[in-house]
Amino acid sequence: MYDGYKSLMICNSLCASVAKSIMIPVKEARDIVLSQVPILGTEKVDLFSALGRVLAENIAAPYNVPPHDNSAMDGYAVRTEDVRNASRDLPEVLDVLEDLPAGYVSQHRLEARQAIRIMTGASIPEGANAVIRVEDTERAEGNRVRIFKAVPPRYDIRVAGEDIRKGEVILQKGTVFRPAEVGLLASLGKSFAQVYQRVQVAILATGDELVEPDEPLQPGKIINSNSYALAALVLETGAIPIQLGIARDSQADLEAKFSAGLRADMMISSGGVSVGDYDLVKDILNQSGAAMEFWQVCMKPGKPLAFGSISGKPTFGLPGNPVSSMVSYEIFVRPALLKMMGHARIYRAVISATMEEELKKTDARKHFMRVTLHQENGKYLASTTGAQGSGILSSMAKANGLAVIDEARMVVKAGEEVPVMMLDQSFGMSNDRDF
Amino acid sequence: MYDGYKSLMICNSLCASVAKSIMIPVKEARDIVLSQVPILGTEKVDLFSALGRVLAENIAAPYNVPPHDNSAMDGYAVRTEDVRNASRDLPEVLDVLEDLPAGYVSQHRLEARQAIRIMTGASIPEGANAVIRVEDTERAEGNRVRIFKAVPPRYDIRVAGEDIRKGEVILQKGTVFRPAEVGLLASLGKSFAQVYQRVQVAILATGDELVEPDEPLQPGKIINSNSYALAALVLETGAIPIQLGIARDSQADLEAKFSAGLRADMMISSGGVSVGDYDLVKDILNQSGAAMEFWQVCMKPGKPLAFGSISGKPTFGLPGNPVSSMVSYEIFVRPALLKMMGHARIYRAVISATMEEELKKTDARKHFMRVTLHQENGKYLASTTGAQGSGILSSMAKANGLAVIDEARMVVKAGEEVPVMMLDQSFGMSNDRDF
Repeated sequence: MYDGYKSLMICNSLCASVAKSIMIPVKEARDIVLSQVPILGTEKVDLFSALGRVLAENIAAPYNVPPHDNSAMDGYAVRTEDVRNASRDLPEVLDVLEDLPAGYVSQHRLEARQAIRIMTGASIPEGANAVIRVEDTERAEGNRVRIFKAVPPRYDIRVAGEDIRKGEVILQKGTVFRPAEVGLLASLGKSFAQVYQRVQVAILATGDELVEPDEPLQPGKIINSNSYALAALVLETGAIPIQLGIARDSQADLEAKFSAGLRADMMISSGGVSVGDYDLVKDILNQSGAAMEFWQVCMKPGKPLAFGSISGKPTFGLPGNPVSSMVSYEIFVRPALLKMMGHARIYRAVISATMEEELKKTDARKHFMRVTLHQENGKYLASTTGAQGSGILSSMAKANGLAVIDEARMVVKAGEEVPVMMLDQSFGMSNDRDF
Repeated sequence: MYDGYKSLMICNSLCASVAKSIMIPVKEARDIVLSQVPILGTEKVDLFSALGRVLAENIAAPYNVPPHDNSAMDGYAVRTEDVRNASRDLPEVLDVLEDLPAGYVSQHRLEARQAIRIMTGASIPEGANAVIRVEDTERAEGNRVRIFKAVPPRYDIRVAGEDIRKGEVILQKGTVFRPAEVGLLASLGKSFAQVYQRVQVAILATGDELVEPDEPLQPGKIINSNSYALAALVLETGAIPIQLGIARDSQADLEAKFSAGLRADMMISSGGVSVGDYDLVKDILNQSGAAMEFWQVCMKPGKPLAFGSISGKPTFGLPGNPVSSMVSYEIFVRPALLKMMGHARIYRAVISATMEEELKKTDARKHFMRVTLHQENGKYLASTTGAQGSGILSSMAKANGLAVIDEARMVVKAGEEVPVMMLDQSFGMSNDRDF
């Protein structure tokens, strides 16, 4: 179990010397973030738009499913007493009153030694109390049928309300929509659902050194990849990115871009929050109307990480390094967005994996190491993607997990277990199939 | 390991008596489907549209990343020989030539006992061979800086090409795009990627008994939920559904709707393929230009399942029962669509789970049972969602996996292991976090 107090002590005693401001533990920072973000309101959307969204209401069945007793198979509706001695050698022969296609209701009442040809899903005619499957019958001359099998009452009849009883809550508030939920609501005559709204997230890159991917790369400049990676993460989380572009290192430009972003539900900037950085972003985050909660988190990568609110909107100042900003997103922004959109399960799956190599930490922060996970004989094995520099974006493309090395754990020997946060929702998908 | 021949024998000997046409094993049916579907061509899309798509080209780095030696930290660029005796008690004091903001290149060459204030990512000035982090320095009067630490050459310098060397293939053909791939391509100045096209899938419900969800439900009628569940599955798979609506039980309507669907890449109909069904759908699937490969698969649910091609387009005749059509989609259509869109890993993840209750099969087909999976002490436990009738759509909403019970396995005792196909990509996500 996590020991918040112990971590805090380790963090403060071992990390404080390298920081001018207070560096808080990951768990504490996440608790602050989650306590500050609101759950958004709801909206009515069509069933397809509801995929991946969270249901904001309990849905009760408006009627029984199936609405009437109906046939589970294609065959003949019969009275069981008429066929109680039927066998393949000694079939019972019944009169066929009619062929009832699917979708139609019989106007007849079944009398002794009568049968009605019936399709799967068709209502059971009055008087009938079982269905004989077509493969246990044979049509005979003179509009009759040979029945080869005896069955008990209700055999191959789906009873009204068997699947769902009228008034029963069939989907609970909080359910995440998948195709099965779409089908289930459609089957109850519902074309829309009330779900939680999607978060709009304004994304801002900062710095005179940045150029956009489609601009010439002059010496000293680097390409703004953070906005794109963050926007893709926001999309993957199910929220709506608004890319504000690049704010230059001037008070006026930063103020203009931040204010353009504050109509969104959340603001994310990247860059400009390190100890040594020019103070323009920090000035913005400290201006009137802003209330910052923390500036540094005891983690690697991602130590410089500001969070608070500006004009009441949750605002993240993520580090400028590409890997740091993506990892910070995973640890803090993703759970926050999922909470805002009504999700209960807001954390990535974590599995326990065997480390294939030795890991050594050089500080007492909590490390999130990029690893490649694979499965062998039902066990998970993890190896690092190589150098863990926070500028090495290619390592994020190689990784499908983040190994979590706690504050107090300075060495992980090869063969030891580590918890790994799964980054890849398709992990375990295969190009081979045994069955 | 799967034993195809043995399964086939079991299937043929135990299942053939209940079928008029040949019932083929699941694996054989899947091999036929996969051998018949084409891999689509490619298209150029923007990075966000590429999310979840498969890269159709190798991408080589157009330049080194980083392009020049640059600072890994905010601090001071120095010559290591000038600070080799520096310590906190006995700092070295250097002249600061200039403050170099990020994005700018120094015009100076560092001489003895000079330093340049430098930001993370800025190019290392000529003459400098290391960076001292700002926290190991203190600004001094007269535009000077006290250095508290000795470092070796190249310390806190990111070397040109350290992340990616020019010409290196950084993303292989076949890579599935995630946010990290978006960021990586952006960082190399690429705004578009060549990916495999998305499959267009025409979806048709058939039957006079069907009404749409927004129509009144008359006695004998049932709501067309299959089209909606299938369209949602197609969307979830990353393909494009075209909902053709409901074809009535007439040759003319079926022909019109099928022909409207054949401009798509794949055609899926539901209903009308069971042994006892009226033969209209079967007539269509047997008409000129159609070449059907099989009509029945030795599985439950989903036994009636036609596959072949019409006018060269892969065509599925799925069963009409809501659960059967969804399960058939999972077993056959989903892998086929993923193959067509360039994916290598086309099969859902399978885990081994302990069954919490006894399962008994009443036939020798391969059963796919809806189960609810959960984790306990690192083990997976599975229990069925209750009655397994193929009309019980609510069971698909309760399920997050399909337990696979092989042909020859007639009983699974409580406590025995079964393979479970995971239906829920978010399985393992949590509302709690230890770290």
